[in-house]
Amino acid sequence: MHSTPSEMRACTEACLSCYRTCLGMASDHCLPAGGKHVEPQHFRLMLGCAEICRTSAHFLLLGLPEHRSTCRTCAEVCQACAASCATVGGMDECVAACRHCAEMCRQMAT
Amino acid sequence: MHSTPSEMRACTEACLSCYRTCLGMASDHCLPAGGKHVEPQHFRLMLGCAEICRTSAHFLLLGLPEHRSTCRTCAEVCQACAASCATVGGMDECVAACRHCAEMCRQMAT
Amino acid sequence: MHSTPSEMRACTEACLSCYRTCLGMASDHCLPAGGKHVEPQHFRLMLGCAEICRTSAHFLLLGLPEHRSTCRTCAEVCQACAASCATVGGMDECVAACRHCAEMCRQMAT
Amino acid sequence: MHSTPSEMRACTEACLSCYRTCLGMASDHCLPAGGKHVEPQHFRLMLGCAEICRTSAHFLLLGLPEHRSTCRTCAEVCQACAASCATVGGMDECVAACRHCAEMCRQMAT
Repeated sequence: MHSTPSEMRACTEACLSCYRTCLGMASDHCLPAGGKHVEPQHFRLMLGCAEICRTSAHFLLLGLPEHRSTCRTCAEVCQACAASCATVGGMDECVAACRHCAEMCRQMAT
Repeated sequence: MHSTPSEMRACTEACLSCYRTCLGMASDHCLPAGGKHVEPQHFRLMLGCAEICRTSAHFLLLGLPEHRSTCRTCAEVCQACAASCATVGGMDECVAACRHCAEMCRQMAT
Repeated sequence: MHSTPSEMRACTEACLSCYRTCLGMASDHCLPAGGKHVEPQHFRLMLGCAEICRTSAHFLLLGLPEHRSTCRTCAEVCQACAASCATVGGMDECVAACRHCAEMCRQMAT
Repeated sequence: MHSTPSEMRACTEACLSCYRTCLGMASDHCLPAGGKHVEPQHFRLMLGCAEICRTSAHFLLLGLPEHRSTCRTCAEVCQACAASCATVGGMDECVAACRHCAEMCRQMAT
């Protein structure tokens, strides 16, 4: 099934928005908060999620058919990051951005 | 002089918007058009501009004081890319995105 | 099955080496050569391959278990890029780098 | 003054090596160690240094004349990161990688 240009644009937007939220909250929320916010597994996921969101957007912008594969991986990482943020608590904005991005990417990947 | 959070957010938005425009037009406009659109110096600038815009946004999101330096470099590359796009012609959207990003980044850098 | 630290380091090295080769050859070989070297599908794959190789290395360096998923995607894109380079011709160095990276990433992904 | 291809390759190698060291140590050394290793300013610098090193290598690989500007910024961030790592202590490998990269980049920037 092929994605339409407008679906791809909406997914690109969701990826870059999730990138901004993950990296921004990692830096200005998690680092100052400390404690479980900088627990290695959680913080690594925040950084990995920011990275794959950016790359998923990159493939969508290039218009490569392989964006299905990067979107599938992105959905998986976003879901893991949303779960980690929900466990840590006080990170609702990041949970929402990750879930929205995961949902958009899953639709691209099918 | 310190930038306010809202100025930094506006600059981040301009950088990511310029990234999207440069990479998107390089792929779906310049490559199919061929000719002077894929002339090495022009196309390298498009790719370099996309890269530094992304990195400039990264530093703004991290909230590092060194964002002044990445913004200064970003402004310089955006200006060169805008000039190259204006010379090639038919790339008004990219010229506008690069000029806006250069202007926003210059304000951060001072 | 868990990867050892030395396997992960070797795969990181293969990813960054493939990134260097793809981006370097795209810029200093394909752009000056023109013709089928800048055919949209081929050139997009070169750029996408450079991007996912960099991200695959990023996940390995972060030590995230999700590196299996980024490595799987990376192997897929590298294989497609190797095939495209072999068809274009005169790109043996890039074919070799992509095949080696694909092989290393596949081992990480299983 | 123009850089030779072999000087550019050596600088690219230094940038990617510094990227690997900064991101790898941020994840597998600083996060588990905690305390001053995850103090916001220090950790942000580690992440910013990894990012600009990668981008500096990107410009060198593209062969853009603007690599002088990205190298200048990279040298500045590497120097700040080396100083931060030296203050935190127990990060000799990162101090060395940052200082070497800063030195190589400064030569490119002149």
